[in-house]
Amino acid sequence: MMSLLDGVNWPSDIKKLKIDELYKLSEEIRNFLIQNVSKTGGHLASNLGVVELTIALHRVFDMPVDKIVWDVGHQSYVHKIITGRKNKFNTLRKYGGLSGFPKPKESPYDVFAAGHSSTSISAALGMAKARDLKNENYNVVAVIGDGALTGGLALEGLNEAGISHTKIIVVLNDNEMSISQNVGSIAAYLSKIRTDPAYLTFKDELEMILKKIPAVGNNLYKGAERLKESLKYLVVQGMLFEELGFTYFGPIDGHDIQKVSEVLERAKHKKGPVLVHVVTKKGKGYCFAEESPDIFHGVGPFEIETGENIVSGKTTYSNIFGEEIVKAAEKNKNIVAITAAMPDGTGLKDFEKKYPSRFFDVGIAEQHAVTFAAGLAANGLKPVFAVYSTFLQRAYDQIIHDVCLQDLPVLFAIDRSGIVGEDGETHQGVFDIAYLRSIPNITILSPKDIFEFKDMLKWCFEYERPAAIRYPRGGDLDVKFPCYDNIIKGKWEILKEGEDIAILAVGRMVQFSYGVLNRLKNSNNINAALINCRFIKPIDVVLLDKIFEKYKIIFTVEDGLLAGGFGSAVLEYACEKNYKGKIVRIGFPDEFIPHGNSSILYKKYGLDTDGIYEKILMNI
Amino acid sequence: MMSLLDGVNWPSDIKKLKIDELYKLSEEIRNFLIQNVSKTGGHLASNLGVVELTIALHRVFDMPVDKIVWDVGHQSYVHKIITGRKNKFNTLRKYGGLSGFPKPKESPYDVFAAGHSSTSISAALGMAKARDLKNENYNVVAVIGDGALTGGLALEGLNEAGISHTKIIVVLNDNEMSISQNVGSIAAYLSKIRTDPAYLTFKDELEMILKKIPAVGNNLYKGAERLKESLKYLVVQGMLFEELGFTYFGPIDGHDIQKVSEVLERAKHKKGPVLVHVVTKKGKGYCFAEESPDIFHGVGPFEIETGENIVSGKTTYSNIFGEEIVKAAEKNKNIVAITAAMPDGTGLKDFEKKYPSRFFDVGIAEQHAVTFAAGLAANGLKPVFAVYSTFLQRAYDQIIHDVCLQDLPVLFAIDRSGIVGEDGETHQGVFDIAYLRSIPNITILSPKDIFEFKDMLKWCFEYERPAAIRYPRGGDLDVKFPCYDNIIKGKWEILKEGEDIAILAVGRMVQFSYGVLNRLKNSNNINAALINCRFIKPIDVVLLDKIFEKYKIIFTVEDGLLAGGFGSAVLEYACEKNYKGKIVRIGFPDEFIPHGNSSILYKKYGLDTDGIYEKILMNI
Repeated sequence: MMSLLDGVNWPSDIKKLKIDELYKLSEEIRNFLIQNVSKTGGHLASNLGVVELTIALHRVFDMPVDKIVWDVGHQSYVHKIITGRKNKFNTLRKYGGLSGFPKPKESPYDVFAAGHSSTSISAALGMAKARDLKNENYNVVAVIGDGALTGGLALEGLNEAGISHTKIIVVLNDNEMSISQNVGSIAAYLSKIRTDPAYLTFKDELEMILKKIPAVGNNLYKGAERLKESLKYLVVQGMLFEELGFTYFGPIDGHDIQKVSEVLERAKHKKGPVLVHVVTKKGKGYCFAEESPDIFHGVGPFEIETGENIVSGKTTYSNIFGEEIVKAAEKNKNIVAITAAMPDGTGLKDFEKKYPSRFFDVGIAEQHAVTFAAGLAANGLKPVFAVYSTFLQRAYDQIIHDVCLQDLPVLFAIDRSGIVGEDGETHQGVFDIAYLRSIPNITILSPKDIFEFKDMLKWCFEYERPAAIRYPRGGDLDVKFPCYDNIIKGKWEILKEGEDIAILAVGRMVQFSYGVLNRLKNSNNINAALINCRFIKPIDVVLLDKIFEKYKIIFTVEDGLLAGGFGSAVLEYACEKNYKGKIVRIGFPDEFIPHGNSSILYKKYGLDTDGIYEKILMNI
Repeated sequence: MMSLLDGVNWPSDIKKLKIDELYKLSEEIRNFLIQNVSKTGGHLASNLGVVELTIALHRVFDMPVDKIVWDVGHQSYVHKIITGRKNKFNTLRKYGGLSGFPKPKESPYDVFAAGHSSTSISAALGMAKARDLKNENYNVVAVIGDGALTGGLALEGLNEAGISHTKIIVVLNDNEMSISQNVGSIAAYLSKIRTDPAYLTFKDELEMILKKIPAVGNNLYKGAERLKESLKYLVVQGMLFEELGFTYFGPIDGHDIQKVSEVLERAKHKKGPVLVHVVTKKGKGYCFAEESPDIFHGVGPFEIETGENIVSGKTTYSNIFGEEIVKAAEKNKNIVAITAAMPDGTGLKDFEKKYPSRFFDVGIAEQHAVTFAAGLAANGLKPVFAVYSTFLQRAYDQIIHDVCLQDLPVLFAIDRSGIVGEDGETHQGVFDIAYLRSIPNITILSPKDIFEFKDMLKWCFEYERPAAIRYPRGGDLDVKFPCYDNIIKGKWEILKEGEDIAILAVGRMVQFSYGVLNRLKNSNNINAALINCRFIKPIDVVLLDKIFEKYKIIFTVEDGLLAGGFGSAVLEYACEKNYKGKIVRIGFPDEFIPHGNSSILYKKYGLDTDGIYEKILMNI
């Protein structure tokens, strides 16, 4: 049977369809999404939520002349499907395939790249201002979720857009969630609007009436203005946005294509900044995703019939972190945990249940999370901010200025450091060593495996100065190590002695490097030493002195960018000691690391066991 | 004649004074401030504005049991004067003397360090939550200016504090300015409140009345709620803050000690988050500062009688940047300029006058500034974001994620890189090389002097990819260089050939290093080569290959942190090429660089000509 979706490849195809056909198309797109994402994995719930909204946007606007900026961008699948990329959808998030986020290099319909949240209003405002300066004429639309609206960048953008007198349309896609339940007073405000009886959605009429109230003498004028606004407040919703300078339309059922189209059409003809508030249901149309939108936010392959995740069941670092912080918190009442909208992903769900008053989900607000942690620490507590490496980048200044400058005992539990895989270049955790290492007062650790991770966490929970512990996505390779030394600040661990070369490896790279040892011995008769460089800062200068004395060739291995990374720290010390041997640094080159399966990426960049082995052979 | 101020050293002394004495004391403190700052330089206007407010705060609260968190902190002079530090005031901002910002190491009355803006609400909320968890009982007060309120971090903090049910008092010190005129819709909103006729300042009564309106049946309940709120809107100001969950008091004349005290007293006994909106006049009581609060925001020594700055009249990098961008913009219509509340400091005043539609002051909102620039660039323009090095730290993720990932032609004009001097550890621009260098796609430049700066800027304005040009505070030393090669990407400049050693220097450090050459020749018979490493990224590998071949000792000199800095970039390449000579890196060690006169700091860290000379001698 010929489906409607078969005939839909471009926005122009959407524009030809009648309204009832669009609803049918919506259902087909839902099925298409579920079918595909169940195989590739990806962001399901958010995309199921915006099917009708995306159709309405492409129906009302003329992309790519009109421009749509997707915030975060993980909800752009429907947009990709109807802008010429339907047939590549089976390559989604695969190496060399479609990106899971908007990407200008992929399509002219993707006008601005994203991956991190809260950027869309600022970016769209920039595009709109450029349009005005060039005397061009088209619409710029930012689509932002209520979750992303807690990010300071979005609020900064809102603050400027409101006063800008620039034509820009902000579509607030309100699904009452960020990744988990939404937080903050703006969320509470949106919830108040949603549950209010509907008053005027179209306030143009009201404004016409209000304008007819004659202005009075100077003395009374202000009072009359105030009365008008009070009247407006009585019948119009979204006054918070109106106060900020936006014309507010909403709330509108985001699954009602007809209604959304009408309001967007209306917004199109308004001058100045407009905010269209649509309410959607995350996961809409797939029962398991509707029930557990947080689980189906970002998901691996799953069984459609049961909604069950096809996972390895492997113990992850996130799980272990979650267990250990619960245990530690039992003994140490000062431990408090902070997440920026990631209680699940970071493993803090149990902590939240067990210690609700000591648990803080601050929403997507990494800067606030860090300065808030500094405040908690300044007043005697031991805050642990669990965060993905890529998102901690957003709080770089707060780490320096609020935590390290005051030498406060905040612990950064940095999950998803190194390669994250399918989320790709916006999400790879490859900057953290380089940017943290230059900050005074901080200690940086990375465990070789999950067993060591537990010990390290215990050490970290008791450490009374700023510290960061970085650990990878997922779990361990199948490696058994011979020893587990006690954790002592600045001390590395000799996993294997050897006469010929020394391999200094960091975190997960210790596992890959361990696989190299026997091969070197058996195939090449090279007896390599392997050092677990658990402390990235401070480095173990006592051991390094010995290493410099003993070895003529040293290899450093890290899952971070080489420029300014761990290998550079070793080089810096080698230079200080005037080491004359050869140091070979293995890590990521000076480029953004694309999306794809982690194993493929490790291989491509020569960071798996094979790659490290070959690199060593090439250099001896 | 005995003054009141003579007898005031601690908050307890304030509490003993009668209201008319407090006004007299205010005048004395003003004189004290003007006298002292006219000699030391410092932040004058903001402190003159908060004399009465600070007195009222210390009158009503019991510091340091109650805790006051100063946002930015440059307005904490009055607080310092009346918390035991009056007699050290002549050492303000001098090396080893009083800091110009709150500093916990300096006094228990300074509970949280600051220097960058917009941190106070988050920090105070953290302290308040810690208080609650520890079952302690005192007040935590954040004092934040309206300028700092445009910062995303402050808005994130506001968003969480509003819903937190935590007792926290936010004093919004509204002087209608950040450093320059304030911008954004929140500023416009505050202005609307200020100019409105005064209604109820104390809304407790109103709330009592509103509560007495009986709740009605479920159907009508929501409507009744809405009617109440509309009524409230009619008579109560600051509904935006009320919508965000705060109890709002204001606006109050911030120079009326009696009134401010009453309201603070009232706020003290409220539950949950309270926002007290006081209106103050920046520069109050000193006519020149009142007239030009932007000039007297941060000021060097000045003549009290005339208000005239005692300055060298030296051409600064900021001036030159301002001139060059105006010239370039004439030819290239695509050039637009962005500042985050620093049109004056960054030298953009003329650009603003000449090209108002191409000039964007986004307020204190560095993240937005960068993503907004990315939007402008994505739509065909050439945006230049002029910003101080220390503040660009706040947009680290946006540089990576919004600019460099998309390879957009945004230019970062990084002023105040390296040592800034008196503003101290929160403001030193010593991180930029380390954190920018690891970002793919970016080019980083630094000019040896102002003449080269002009050439470089021309190059930068035409460069079509992401670039950062870092230049120091102030102007040049009295150095004349022998040559000015054309700017070619990735090419360094040989300023002097030499046989014995090579000195690779960056930016201002080229000037200091130049002074070393003759001394080495004349006193030590060392013939040193000097290379101007104008491109920090990419480095000049062709020239480096020759240098590695020719020299056994190489010195790198930079005014940034050594960890991950420029010297590390040279080391990384030397390691790749298996260079066997000695490389000595000169720069800042792994610590926060304190406040003090720049010359003193360069000397202390061995980065002036003497220091570099000695370091070279020690290593050959």
